[in-house]
Amino acid sequence: MNQYVIIVAGGSGQRMQSVIPKQFLELAGKPILFHTLNKFVQYNPEIDITIVLPEYHINTWKELIKTHNYPVKHTIVCGGEIRFNSVKNGLNAIPNEGLVAVHDGVRPLVSLETIHKCFIDAELYGNAIPCIPIYETVRRVTDMNSRLEDRSALRLIQTPQVFKINLLKQAYNQSYKPQFTDDASVVENMGEQIHLVEGNRENIKITDPLDLVLAQAILKNFELV
Amino acid sequence: MNQYVIIVAGGSGQRMQSVIPKQFLELAGKPILFHTLNKFVQYNPEIDITIVLPEYHINTWKELIKTHNYPVKHTIVCGGEIRFNSVKNGLNAIPNEGLVAVHDGVRPLVSLETIHKCFIDAELYGNAIPCIPIYETVRRVTDMNSRLEDRSALRLIQTPQVFKINLLKQAYNQSYKPQFTDDASVVENMGEQIHLVEGNRENIKITDPLDLVLAQAILKNFELV
Repeated sequence: MNQYVIIVAGGSGQRMQSVIPKQFLELAGKPILFHTLNKFVQYNPEIDITIVLPEYHINTWKELIKTHNYPVKHTIVCGGEIRFNSVKNGLNAIPNEGLVAVHDGVRPLVSLETIHKCFIDAELYGNAIPCIPIYETVRRVTDMNSRLEDRSALRLIQTPQVFKINLLKQAYNQSYKPQFTDDASVVENMGEQIHLVEGNRENIKITDPLDLVLAQAILKNFELV
Repeated sequence: MNQYVIIVAGGSGQRMQSVIPKQFLELAGKPILFHTLNKFVQYNPEIDITIVLPEYHINTWKELIKTHNYPVKHTIVCGGEIRFNSVKNGLNAIPNEGLVAVHDGVRPLVSLETIHKCFIDAELYGNAIPCIPIYETVRRVTDMNSRLEDRSALRLIQTPQVFKINLLKQAYNQSYKPQFTDDASVVENMGEQIHLVEGNRENIKITDPLDLVLAQAILKNFELV
């Protein structure tokens, strides 16, 4: 099946205390978004890439491409007001057949193995979502109290989330609901079962200065394959 | 109230792929455990420190103290087979009055503010447990499926967990149960309400090589106060 990836890079960078939106911040000398795109090209040089960016960041992105002579071919699509609309706009730019990965632009440390597993299992099950276990003790906050929660059944969800394209397009025809925090939750809302695969712990989402420092340290010390 | 801390350093270092147990590994030129102890001394130079170590690591610890001329006074107690027994042994070494913090030896990046909040609130509520929110999407694994979980009510639990000493001693008189993954769960099992306070995100537990790299990066880039 043909492989597509929609890279959602809609963040305005407010939590990062930076005027540069976080997906353009430098990580080991390159904008974060270059690292992210490179991973998918490394996985499959033929993959079809769409980047969803807020309209007011598109020129910055084009200038970064020019400055760095960045060679990776991709389609640019305007983002919506919220992530749900951004993904929807991305989906409108791709055909109906094949598999599509939806990936956070600020997750440059996804491993090739995680991407591979997601595409393989999505072809079998219709969808595949990477996750990692929780090692810390977990509690659930109640009105005035809190209680111990069994962490063994809980998983932290990552991206890329890979789907058969027609399934994801159908899901995004639904109206938006506040509990849609990722793409799997949109698909699940149609009654579909969600298939989990093992992600990689280094695949953090860079949303604040601490994350950026952690990402730099990981990139310097580990080879992600 | 008098302040005590029991530092549990019972890990044998198997996940770290290292012959040196993880609490003795170097972080910025010093054993991790020195960093951890220093934090509590910085918070309160008068705090009474007990370290619980596996019997077969006590000599290594004493040699590290000699080599580094490490000046911080503390009591050394032999650990038990599991964490529950180690904490119990630590409690036997301290009096019945005052407040006691139980802290993981491999959490050197706790902030002084987190320690402070826990002691303040434990005096008011009998116990105080630091926690942080979960920013990732969370799913719950079921038999053949998984479903979206509301993350807003979930918290990741850290240490130091601070208690009135008589309360914690009473709790540790119970028989061990497998769900006792921390001290709060032991106290909760007696019917006590658990009081949560805000922890600090940097306060990670160093259990594998990735954690060690992250801890080094945090120490180098952030001033924890």
